[in-house]
Amino acid sequence: MNYCSDCGKPIVIEIPDGDNTLRHVCSACRTIHYKNPLIVVGCVPEWEGRLLLCKRAIEPRLGYWTAPAGFMELGETLEEGAARETLEEACARVEIGSMLASVSVPHVNQVHIMFRARLLDGQFSAGEESLEVRLFSPYEIPWQDLAFPSVTFSIKKLLADPHGGMHSHSIKPR
Amino acid sequence: MNYCSDCGKPIVIEIPDGDNTLRHVCSACRTIHYKNPLIVVGCVPEWEGRLLLCKRAIEPRLGYWTAPAGFMELGETLEEGAARETLEEACARVEIGSMLASVSVPHVNQVHIMFRARLLDGQFSAGEESLEVRLFSPYEIPWQDLAFPSVTFSIKKLLADPHGGMHSHSIKPR
Repeated sequence: MNYCSDCGKPIVIEIPDGDNTLRHVCSACRTIHYKNPLIVVGCVPEWEGRLLLCKRAIEPRLGYWTAPAGFMELGETLEEGAARETLEEACARVEIGSMLASVSVPHVNQVHIMFRARLLDGQFSAGEESLEVRLFSPYEIPWQDLAFPSVTFSIKKLLADPHGGMHSHSIKPR
Repeated sequence: MNYCSDCGKPIVIEIPDGDNTLRHVCSACRTIHYKNPLIVVGCVPEWEGRLLLCKRAIEPRLGYWTAPAGFMELGETLEEGAARETLEEACARVEIGSMLASVSVPHVNQVHIMFRARLLDGQFSAGEESLEVRLFSPYEIPWQDLAFPSVTFSIKKLLADPHGGMHSHSIKPR
């Protein structure tokens, strides 16, 4: 960040009054531009005892297998984000269940939130960001070719505890 | 957002190639500036059967009671963020336990993640953002004067299920 996104003038890095952390502050309008971790939201969809995974068509980890997941968008709930990502990456409609895993990844400033889920109709195909989408039985999981540690963690947790977890909640205006 | 934070030139709002959502895009360097929901992280600390709450010294909801919580910072885990906020707002050191609640608040683009916690030594006092900090027995909770619906939800869930929840996980580089 070099320029203020509000007024276009140069940014300086300093600790604002009442704060204890270096921030990006506009040298002209004094707006403080905070940077915060991003939420990656997704799910591990199940269908007749098998799990749906996607082979990545994009970097990072192109060619490796992942659960459908991506950056949460403005205006959606965690569950809506997980369902949207599954539709985009696997062309599959899901019912989202309980929270499966919450994984902080502080060195890349992300929190991964993964849900249990069930395919609604068993239909799926590769979306634009996937080379291939398929169902794996628990014995077929490509453990050596999974894209991210949080995916490995989530699949292990799902196999160990298919029906547990915590239900998340949403608050919307009346 | 009016100006590109990278190069300082004007922003246009358009749907980038391969996307399906309007984004802030730089008219000069073509950088896409994504906007994403923020994580608010906190906890409801317990000590000898009572719960620690803070009376807010800042807007929004100045004068109302809240659990210690705030925006997650770069480079920390959810648990580290919850402990940091408790130290800042209640000058209290806590051991963070299982996840108590996950609450999506899409109309303000936030996800609130709250943990069970225990005071380490029973010590606390008002931090800069608090007018007062005190312990409440379950019968004393100021339900009508709680600051946010997610705080009400979290306290109810804690009273109904003091020891349950889901443990979150962190991945740090070796």
